[in-house]
Amino acid sequence: MPPPYTLAYADRATRHKNPAAKLLLETIHRKRSNLAVSVDVTQSSDFLAIIDAVGPLVCLIKTHIDILEDFDSNLINKLVELSKKHDFVIFEDRKFADIGNTVALQYSSGVHKIASWSHITNAHPVPGPSVISGLAAVGLPLGRGLLLLAEMSTKGTLARGEYTDDAVRMARSNSEFVIGFIAQRRMDGLGLGPSEAKLDEDFLILTPGVGLEVKGDAMGQQYRTPDEVIRQNGCDVIIVGRGVYGTNLKDVEAIRQRAERYRQEGWDAYLKRTQS
Amino acid sequence: MPPPYTLAYADRATRHKNPAAKLLLETIHRKRSNLAVSVDVTQSSDFLAIIDAVGPLVCLIKTHIDILEDFDSNLINKLVELSKKHDFVIFEDRKFADIGNTVALQYSSGVHKIASWSHITNAHPVPGPSVISGLAAVGLPLGRGLLLLAEMSTKGTLARGEYTDDAVRMARSNSEFVIGFIAQRRMDGLGLGPSEAKLDEDFLILTPGVGLEVKGDAMGQQYRTPDEVIRQNGCDVIIVGRGVYGTNLKDVEAIRQRAERYRQEGWDAYLKRTQS
Repeated sequence: MPPPYTLAYADRATRHKNPAAKLLLETIHRKRSNLAVSVDVTQSSDFLAIIDAVGPLVCLIKTHIDILEDFDSNLINKLVELSKKHDFVIFEDRKFADIGNTVALQYSSGVHKIASWSHITNAHPVPGPSVISGLAAVGLPLGRGLLLLAEMSTKGTLARGEYTDDAVRMARSNSEFVIGFIAQRRMDGLGLGPSEAKLDEDFLILTPGVGLEVKGDAMGQQYRTPDEVIRQNGCDVIIVGRGVYGTNLKDVEAIRQRAERYRQEGWDAYLKRTQS
Repeated sequence: MPPPYTLAYADRATRHKNPAAKLLLETIHRKRSNLAVSVDVTQSSDFLAIIDAVGPLVCLIKTHIDILEDFDSNLINKLVELSKKHDFVIFEDRKFADIGNTVALQYSSGVHKIASWSHITNAHPVPGPSVISGLAAVGLPLGRGLLLLAEMSTKGTLARGEYTDDAVRMARSNSEFVIGFIAQRRMDGLGLGPSEAKLDEDFLILTPGVGLEVKGDAMGQQYRTPDEVIRQNGCDVIIVGRGVYGTNLKDVEAIRQRAERYRQEGWDAYLKRTQS
């Protein structure tokens, strides 16, 4: 198999067995969008209005359900309705990072019941393989997929070097459920020993820290452009937060326009990558 | 200053500047208990009944507020009442592990509003120093304290070696807010360069994975005894979950008796440590 980043999203969709990975790749192809928008707001009305505005332009909506002050179970119904109306995948960015028994409860239970509505979630590999098995026990029967945080885009992150290699090895041993990584570049073949053959693996790379106009914030976040991320580094999905929703949450038309600009830049970068 | 694990809890309380660290050390001394109970249940009625039963015997109650299915803000009022009635510190084991901007929202906002009621919380150091500054912006003005996860008790954890050293260095640079570690042994002097003097530091060590009767579970958790943890490894607080609350959540008398046994074992180990 050729390197996955040289293939079309549609081709990769047919090869993936995990239902959430397949759905994401098909959605990207169908909507000509590798843009994910991260909706990091604290009021449900803003949350739903922004998602309704950018929904047609994205493959995926990334949520932090635990920052919504007026959360109730009805909000989930509305989110799921929007996901059907606009045809996008939901990714709750929970960053699970506890022992297997605890993450299984955090994923399935509590007021948020993440596993019941989020197609994709993510976890830090730091607890070891039990974080994956705990989540898989809940998520696999529901057709969910997991991303591991192999790298982070923050200054001074400890997710580097051997840590990243270990994350890839953990994913490879659990590839039925682990569909890819939150990372800054491709992870193919990373962490393989000298005698191990490179496998036919196609991990999805979703990349945060994407911005067109800013280079960083006061809290250690660092930014790169869609072209750097998709074309130069072979990542699959750009995750944009404040670059899309900005500072005036009520101006949904401006938010929609910014999303369209990112969608176009991300898609052009993908076309250049696969056609070169 | 002599090594902190040779000193009495009461002496250490007078030296600590962070209000949450001081409160925890004073509570341990006053109640002759270095036992923390982790109440990992999904029903509020069980949660409150167990805390009411073990409350008199513990220095600290550790919560996973996000696994409670029938959570509402009234539950927090009841938890805070119990903390006053029985004189214990509250530690929400949230394991924050995101960028600064996000953890600040997760800590202050959402339905759980953790910063408003939890004296202590914890974070993984993997995002780098911004996870601490994001949480400190919310927690310091409220007199809260943070524990970093320098190690974990699970099989195959990536929190080891250089990762642990980096965690200690991050704590040392932020010791106004970072009061200690979730770890399996003392961290004093770890990560210091050859030319750096050992500082007068006293990080609290809270240690999970403590059990008297079992050696592990099916999901990768591993156990050690209170004597191993407190006397042999110099840790400060034993965190016990299923070892105390067991499998019959309604038998609060048996739960209370098991808590008393752990309290006694933990305290005896401390007396042996400081008197030897």
